[in-house]
Amino acid sequence: MSAAGCVLCETDGGLVVARTPEFRVVRVVDGEEARRFPAFYRLIWAHHVAEFSDLKATDRHLCMDAVTEIERVLRSLLAPAKVNIASLGNVVPHLHWHVAARFVWDSHFPAPVWAAAQRDEVPGGAAARLRVPLTEVDEALLAVFRF
Amino acid sequence: MSAAGCVLCETDGGLVVARTPEFRVVRVVDGEEARRFPAFYRLIWAHHVAEFSDLKATDRHLCMDAVTEIERVLRSLLAPAKVNIASLGNVVPHLHWHVAARFVWDSHFPAPVWAAAQRDEVPGGAAARLRVPLTEVDEALLAVFRF
Repeated sequence: MSAAGCVLCETDGGLVVARTPEFRVVRVVDGEEARRFPAFYRLIWAHHVAEFSDLKATDRHLCMDAVTEIERVLRSLLAPAKVNIASLGNVVPHLHWHVAARFVWDSHFPAPVWAAAQRDEVPGGAAARLRVPLTEVDEALLAVFRF
Repeated sequence: MSAAGCVLCETDGGLVVARTPEFRVVRVVDGEEARRFPAFYRLIWAHHVAEFSDLKATDRHLCMDAVTEIERVLRSLLAPAKVNIASLGNVVPHLHWHVAARFVWDSHFPAPVWAAAQRDEVPGGAAARLRVPLTEVDEALLAVFRF
């Protein structure tokens, strides 16, 4: 169920905002990603599986229903220009979904967060430009997954 | 159901390898992406919706079951190092899922396909390094979605 040396088996991989038996939801809080893309969350599957298709159908549906709930919270509270969802895992092959709210003013929009920057970063960090504090988003996510 | 000026409403957006009432599956065949990432497919939702969470639950499950089938065909025929799945849509906000087989020898691995190259491209195009011709992958996808 866990793999030695896997960073997502051995660490939380971000600030945990909600946890269920099947997965946890974390906010990216470290480094350049957090500074440039303030509402950047990840759903990390509890068990160590590499590919989405390694999950059985009920777990895949549960997983994507949860990703959808994250997206809905981001849309509802932050009104982003777009939500980006991705499961890559080339470096850390432990199933995790990136769910990031994107804004026309973020440093990379409309390019992917992994591409080259399109403009300067928001001075002082992008979080200050959000409609609501990120702690409010965290709390809304906890409320969704607590019930 | 369709939006004026949307490139995915008005064009196929790639080589169509399968089509159902709900979506089409296309292979990326043009430009640098196709040359660098030979087994790069997209599932494009038929109706014009921007975000995954705009779909009702049954459509979301159907959509991701189809993405899973694409992933399974890629894994089965090509044995990639990893499959990358993403719904971004910042430039074209019409729901589409990128499903790309990644290989340790591709020009960007382990970076995302949207990031900077890590090494030179495979001379003559990466498709030649695949286990089977892409037409065989296309046929396998058609077989999956025909039934």
